[in-house]
Amino acid sequence: MANHDQALAQLSDHVRKTAMLESINSLLNWDERTYMPELAGPYRAEQITWVSAMLHERKTDARLADWLNDLADHPACADPHSDIATTIREVRREFDKQNKLPQRLVEELARYSVTGQQAWVEARRDNDFGKLRPFLEKIVALKREQAEAVGYKQHPYDALLDDYEPNATTAEVKQTLSELRSELVPLVQAIRESKQTPPVEILHALYPTSAQEEFGKQAAAAIGFDFHRGRLDVTHHPFCTEMGPHDCRITTRYDEHFFSSAFFGILHEAGHGLYELGRRPEEYGMPTGQYVSLGIHESQSRLWENQVGRSQAFWQHFFPLAKQQFPAALGKVKQDDFFFAINEVKPSLIRVEADEATYNLHIIIRFELEQALIVGDLAVADLPQAWNDKYREYLGVVPPNDADGVLQDIHWPAALFGYFPTYSLGNLYAAQFFEQADQDLGGLASLISRGEFAPLLKWLQDKIHRYGRCFSPAELVERATAKPLSHEPLIRHLRGKLAPLYQL
Amino acid sequence: MANHDQALAQLSDHVRKTAMLESINSLLNWDERTYMPELAGPYRAEQITWVSAMLHERKTDARLADWLNDLADHPACADPHSDIATTIREVRREFDKQNKLPQRLVEELARYSVTGQQAWVEARRDNDFGKLRPFLEKIVALKREQAEAVGYKQHPYDALLDDYEPNATTAEVKQTLSELRSELVPLVQAIRESKQTPPVEILHALYPTSAQEEFGKQAAAAIGFDFHRGRLDVTHHPFCTEMGPHDCRITTRYDEHFFSSAFFGILHEAGHGLYELGRRPEEYGMPTGQYVSLGIHESQSRLWENQVGRSQAFWQHFFPLAKQQFPAALGKVKQDDFFFAINEVKPSLIRVEADEATYNLHIIIRFELEQALIVGDLAVADLPQAWNDKYREYLGVVPPNDADGVLQDIHWPAALFGYFPTYSLGNLYAAQFFEQADQDLGGLASLISRGEFAPLLKWLQDKIHRYGRCFSPAELVERATAKPLSHEPLIRHLRGKLAPLYQL
Repeated sequence: MANHDQALAQLSDHVRKTAMLESINSLLNWDERTYMPELAGPYRAEQITWVSAMLHERKTDARLADWLNDLADHPACADPHSDIATTIREVRREFDKQNKLPQRLVEELARYSVTGQQAWVEARRDNDFGKLRPFLEKIVALKREQAEAVGYKQHPYDALLDDYEPNATTAEVKQTLSELRSELVPLVQAIRESKQTPPVEILHALYPTSAQEEFGKQAAAAIGFDFHRGRLDVTHHPFCTEMGPHDCRITTRYDEHFFSSAFFGILHEAGHGLYELGRRPEEYGMPTGQYVSLGIHESQSRLWENQVGRSQAFWQHFFPLAKQQFPAALGKVKQDDFFFAINEVKPSLIRVEADEATYNLHIIIRFELEQALIVGDLAVADLPQAWNDKYREYLGVVPPNDADGVLQDIHWPAALFGYFPTYSLGNLYAAQFFEQADQDLGGLASLISRGEFAPLLKWLQDKIHRYGRCFSPAELVERATAKPLSHEPLIRHLRGKLAPLYQL
Repeated sequence: MANHDQALAQLSDHVRKTAMLESINSLLNWDERTYMPELAGPYRAEQITWVSAMLHERKTDARLADWLNDLADHPACADPHSDIATTIREVRREFDKQNKLPQRLVEELARYSVTGQQAWVEARRDNDFGKLRPFLEKIVALKREQAEAVGYKQHPYDALLDDYEPNATTAEVKQTLSELRSELVPLVQAIRESKQTPPVEILHALYPTSAQEEFGKQAAAAIGFDFHRGRLDVTHHPFCTEMGPHDCRITTRYDEHFFSSAFFGILHEAGHGLYELGRRPEEYGMPTGQYVSLGIHESQSRLWENQVGRSQAFWQHFFPLAKQQFPAALGKVKQDDFFFAINEVKPSLIRVEADEATYNLHIIIRFELEQALIVGDLAVADLPQAWNDKYREYLGVVPPNDADGVLQDIHWPAALFGYFPTYSLGNLYAAQFFEQADQDLGGLASLISRGEFAPLLKWLQDKIHRYGRCFSPAELVERATAKPLSHEPLIRHLRGKLAPLYQL
């Protein structure tokens, strides 16, 4: 018993300190992307490299194995969802994974992910996939090696997916996303053929930056983002990061001639932030206080951005306030027109600019292609053609060049394989959670239309945030919604909103 | 030889990594004082405490002793000012000092400096010196113990002064500051009796914050502060910090109804920043790339703030620009009136608000009192009375209460003894450097009046910045000005400017 207590205390202290070092690294990264002077970059890279090396040392510290051995028969493990059981299970999971990877592979992956990204920048600039190809071939080979080293039951892709969506299997995700695709493709096709066109020019009037910032902060605060525990700053590629139990920083960028990018970006990042700030502060740094998966994280951002932020109810409350903030741009605009404009669906080439409906098709394409690369069914050399074929088939558009096609994302050059599907999983989780919360809370539309967001946030905190990693994503979905993950709530959400707008 | 090379490489790597950790700590501190969300404080304190503990471990690492032993007979030490000799000497100096302090004393000082500051906040708020007294008594006892542990030749205060102004002795500083005092007291007295009064109301018109920021940045950039290697942000208590060879952050605060605080504050901090950015970047983290003393650091800020920024020549260049930035406040103001206003001399109670002439009397009072405390000539209980007596004698004013008297500064409650005189040493160095540069460059006034600051900055870089710790402060002064430090240049500077203004 004393042995258990001591081992748990030592392990917890080690894990919390490691998280503290991660939080310091987060500040180094946040500052680099917001305020750091231009010429400070090279030294900042040295700082981050050194901290990363210290982190790797801490995560592979041999004492972890000793503590974990001492804790293997801890009585609290009888309940696998208890805080102690979760701590032991998740620390072991991470430690085992780190230790299964040969040092040489870790280093090669780190090196190729840097050179791969550098090659990608050039390849994209010169619209020349050939410049990326040799790097990508090496990276794919290394990721296959990683999958073999870590091990998997059915599909080598399982091992990679597990880094981002623990316990998810390729087969299940494939099944769900195939079902989603088979509904989405005809829906998008029907919208293409619709005679209705949203008055999107409304969104391209002049929206002064300072008013955008004020309005964005107002909305973020309204949904529950606590500016005493967080900030909003400007960056090139928006992100959300945390660096302490009460320190969450979201970022955005402003386009004076486009309303949507900053506003929905802020709601999106604030959604991530609500998840960060909604977990138990006293568990900060422990698996019990950690986000459970990228898919669940994305569900929280997407829910606030789309299910809430792109709803009629939301604008019943916010449109009068928007008119006050942007009298020149919106003074004479009707709410219905504005609502249609922010819900435009239009197949396009670039994932990060895609709308709520077509976005998932961009993801499904990448998911299918990366599986094929990992399993060896597709050669890197054939990737551009395969990319273009799928864009034609699923979205009805064909990239005019590789820069706007296969070269648009940084993920593969950065050795991130298994990451893409978490975006769509996030959309699916979001729809299923929202539908359930709507039912549990007796109609969210009326609450939201009165600007009352607290009940929804509390529902999310109670059902998801507070558990950290105590439950797997699949378990959280089952517990919160009494059903396994399905494509149906998302399709219902999209059809319910888009059918009337496009008169389908 | 190989042994020397290896030991030097290992020692250098260790020292540079320690500086890297310091630079990370600087970011944690800078962020805390600029952008950190309100409720993030407690976790930030934990981060900083942990990093500080790691720093202490690195600085007392036993391997340092081994490397230093291996390097004791390094041939480069034949020239004590060479980079290698400087590295060996200064690392040894720091290591020996750290190791002379018993661990218990280090911990007690750390603890009492924290509780002392907390008690000080209360004591100041309640205007009750009694609440600080027991803490201050303990701190004085600990500082005396520190002086005994570290050792000294003549005066126990030497050992404390050495922390901030290496190699300076109490006797020398006492001599110089006494001479300064004997000239300053009658000068200030004469100004008090002068019939001339500066039109200071000019400085209290409306100066919009955004224009102040723009004008301050313009001036900082003009004197050579490189905004590609630095930033200016807002804080409560302005400071300058560096976190890399090309990353120096200065801060200020704006008062819309007082021109001077932000503007001269920015020049002051930019002066510190020019010293940070003027040292050799490739020596960053080594003693050869480090600031040599607080007094020399302060001389760089004071020189740009006072010798440059409060000169007629400076405003010949900048007054037309100021009129453009602040047309409402300065449109009809004459340059001579503005110049007199920014050079007002008026005895007052609060050090940080004092003018260029009386400031040094505030410092001399503190210097004399803290020496007496350390040597045991003055009891903490008698400090408030002694404080008030000296204010009456040197400045002709008496604090109406301790909050505006002996309780105004954080230094003593924070266990900083030996720190105060570096402020006045800075003023003395600044005047002596400026006088010499004026001579060497054939008249600075004409350069400055044309907005040409580069020759002066280059002179400072060549004579001071680039040496890091290769020379002691006294050696730098001797080399740069061919004279030991004297109070005369500062008195000449003050008299030269103030006598015509006040018609003395």
